[in-house]
Amino acid sequence: MHLDRAADMPLYQQVAAHLRARILDGALPAGSRLLGSREIARELGCSRAIVLTALELLYAEGYLVSVPRGGVKVAALARKAAPDAPSPAPGIEPARLSHRWRSVLAIDYAFDLASPFSTGTPDIADFPFDTWARLLRQAWRNAPRSACTDMSPLGWQPLREATAEFLGTVRGLLCRPEEVVITPASSGALDLCCRMLIDPGDEVWVEEPGFIEARWALQAAGARLVPVPVDGKGLVVAEGIRRAPRAKLAVVTPSHQFPLGVAMSLDRRLELLDWAQRQGSTVIEDDYNSEFRQRDSMAASLKSLDRAGHVVYLGTFSKVMLPSLRIGYLVASPAFIDVFGRGRARIDVHTAGTAQPALAEFLREGHLLRYLRRMRLVYAARKQAVLDAVQALLPGELDIVPSEAGLHVTGLFTPRLAARLTDTEASARSRAVSNFIQPLSQCFLGTPDRQGLVIGFGRLPVEDAHPRLAAVADALRATGSGQSGGPGAGAARRGR
Amino acid sequence: MHLDRAADMPLYQQVAAHLRARILDGALPAGSRLLGSREIARELGCSRAIVLTALELLYAEGYLVSVPRGGVKVAALARKAAPDAPSPAPGIEPARLSHRWRSVLAIDYAFDLASPFSTGTPDIADFPFDTWARLLRQAWRNAPRSACTDMSPLGWQPLREATAEFLGTVRGLLCRPEEVVITPASSGALDLCCRMLIDPGDEVWVEEPGFIEARWALQAAGARLVPVPVDGKGLVVAEGIRRAPRAKLAVVTPSHQFPLGVAMSLDRRLELLDWAQRQGSTVIEDDYNSEFRQRDSMAASLKSLDRAGHVVYLGTFSKVMLPSLRIGYLVASPAFIDVFGRGRARIDVHTAGTAQPALAEFLREGHLLRYLRRMRLVYAARKQAVLDAVQALLPGELDIVPSEAGLHVTGLFTPRLAARLTDTEASARSRAVSNFIQPLSQCFLGTPDRQGLVIGFGRLPVEDAHPRLAAVADALRATGSGQSGGPGAGAARRGR
Repeated sequence: MHLDRAADMPLYQQVAAHLRARILDGALPAGSRLLGSREIARELGCSRAIVLTALELLYAEGYLVSVPRGGVKVAALARKAAPDAPSPAPGIEPARLSHRWRSVLAIDYAFDLASPFSTGTPDIADFPFDTWARLLRQAWRNAPRSACTDMSPLGWQPLREATAEFLGTVRGLLCRPEEVVITPASSGALDLCCRMLIDPGDEVWVEEPGFIEARWALQAAGARLVPVPVDGKGLVVAEGIRRAPRAKLAVVTPSHQFPLGVAMSLDRRLELLDWAQRQGSTVIEDDYNSEFRQRDSMAASLKSLDRAGHVVYLGTFSKVMLPSLRIGYLVASPAFIDVFGRGRARIDVHTAGTAQPALAEFLREGHLLRYLRRMRLVYAARKQAVLDAVQALLPGELDIVPSEAGLHVTGLFTPRLAARLTDTEASARSRAVSNFIQPLSQCFLGTPDRQGLVIGFGRLPVEDAHPRLAAVADALRATGSGQSGGPGAGAARRGR
Repeated sequence: MHLDRAADMPLYQQVAAHLRARILDGALPAGSRLLGSREIARELGCSRAIVLTALELLYAEGYLVSVPRGGVKVAALARKAAPDAPSPAPGIEPARLSHRWRSVLAIDYAFDLASPFSTGTPDIADFPFDTWARLLRQAWRNAPRSACTDMSPLGWQPLREATAEFLGTVRGLLCRPEEVVITPASSGALDLCCRMLIDPGDEVWVEEPGFIEARWALQAAGARLVPVPVDGKGLVVAEGIRRAPRAKLAVVTPSHQFPLGVAMSLDRRLELLDWAQRQGSTVIEDDYNSEFRQRDSMAASLKSLDRAGHVVYLGTFSKVMLPSLRIGYLVASPAFIDVFGRGRARIDVHTAGTAQPALAEFLREGHLLRYLRRMRLVYAARKQAVLDAVQALLPGELDIVPSEAGLHVTGLFTPRLAARLTDTEASARSRAVSNFIQPLSQCFLGTPDRQGLVIGFGRLPVEDAHPRLAAVADALRATGSGQSGGPGAGAARRGR
């Protein structure tokens, strides 16, 4: 045996581990007497104290028993240790994963986070890291006890207050701090809602097309998904009522529907709230990326219309700050808050606390508002660059759906383009030229009734929009699938 | 209407909110014509630009429509807005909470986090806040992109590495960074395991008596709990096999059983692993608070005996650092890691990222080891103070179960004390004298076969142990329930 003095494991642990392994694999059989501690120490070249500690440990663990006139021998173990695992370790077989999670993990879709056209990925290059780092230090140097040990499952109180203020300023959403719960971003908030509200088999309206990732939480909770079509005025509520009048939940993106980008009309909003109130159903409003609105006149949130307390509003700070932050919030009426708080307490006590006090200050000192104002201009320019490039490069082929917020636009295939290829083929071609763009059809639960491309621009520099979309446009025009087309073909068409 | 210039909500939003409310409540009926923007501005005492922005917003939202020769009128809404909520808001009725979560929230037990005898609550007075604050600042001033946007669902790689090293040093647990997943503390880790592995109705062994909070995650996943008794050698594996031979999971605390404090014997450990391997079952080892061991010779973890990859090992940094941190880990074989990573990604993308890079440095620079070494001495002294006080104040009444780690001890009622009162009564009396101690019986799923008190000492100063336990001892000796006994009776008995 060789002792590794540079290793992190203490020497007595190394000695014990060595002896333990030899006992378990039978090299030191039951009843065999160990050498004296002095001899072992000499053999290993370590102090006797180390060996004694190791032997004491093995004795305490039951590997060794003392013999009448001093010394120790190997204990008779009731059974042999498990054999070494074959390689690779079997670990969990698929059959041991729960059925429900097998179905959740089976929901797959094409994406490429590294693509400049990835949706929902913000740019972090201009984030005020210095300020954020300073506030973190400030928060933890002299942390109050309330930030260290007794944080509420509902979130740190000053952050709940700052969030309520932030929502008033940025979204015109009037809410009280008591109506705010701090969550592990909006996916964690949606997961909490689904777990606490859904019984297996409960029907839930989801937008068609819609946000694939929302389906994970819903399916993990055992929901039966009811796709409800989206038209130019948003969710077709009447169709939802026809398909599943008693649905327990409706999950919607009224400000700018994902992926289409349309805003839900006022009539549809009132119709949806009316249905929820009549049925006692709950509407989950995912107000994703609405902070990145392009005009002040973006429609108010659904939640601000909700007088009877049927809407749970979700949002996140991760997207407007740093994706790894994983801090978001939900806004709901008091009875919801009570059960969400008790639920959070029983899942993981409360949302991670390290960022919460610093984030409260970041909001209170106005840093997020300033950063947002700057980034809105950045994203507006990027969006315009995408619109211009599509207009120039794919005229009569891609119809951009107008939208007022967010970090993506969706272009619907015109009949001319749709006659030539599917959006899945188009997406594959964009991937082949290293500019992956998501196909709209994968956002459908049922058969897609539209073809299109969902074009993110959060991390797309303005000057890249034209050349990258030109490469995609060339690839779409090439004959044969997966090919990017010769330079001649591309050049000939680029001027149109 | 009164505009509040000090409010966070922009003025145009205030104007819009006011008009919106009047339209919805019928004060401005459909078809009515609004005053011109100049007149409204004059009436409100604000600029016309603000009114125009508000009107543009309401127009975009569909509250207003334009009239042929200029100006706007109130739109005809398809339906009336929901009436104002009655007070208090109905929000969620209990019936709308899922059945499973209703049962989870119904699991109740007596505790008092503010009590000096609260179990599992560490002392944070000596935590190196300055160092922690400095490392947080350092981590975020010049954060690498990998810490900001693309953090793995398995955790930040340097933290996985530092955790693997830490476990080698502190627990003699040899594992590779690839076998570590960073989780929202150990409750979040247990929740993840339960969600991903358990199908409704699956049997799970739980220790009897055991950790109440583990039942939450299990029941939330739909498990059928099978209580398996614990004796002086830990879990009675043979009894588990008799009661539920095909259980999917066993959740155990082998190092120092909660609440009894006993360590599982080697024979029982091998028996448990042998069963798990034969059945293809999974053993979850919750190695809570074993960092606070009192001797080097504390038994190795069950995981270190696990060659076939059936054990998932759970631990947390929250208890050894700051409870609000909510960062822990699980250690498991590669096939588990794969599904846990995919599951985490679909629940909340990854465990909150703000603390992870700083924590990696905190471990790497040895701050946690140094802090732990200091706190071990602090807690050892507190434990001894409790043992001495119990010995002096409740001789022949409370038998302390020997244990080697953790932040609590359990005292079993002797027949003499048990003849006089139940532990629930005893606990109520301790609460009445403001020194709440948990009753052992509430840790049983079935009928308790032992009575006792679970005495935490994490936040109990050494000098408080005797006077506070004296108050409890007096209360236990008083005749009649809930009374603390006259001073005379207390004084007369205190010397025993």
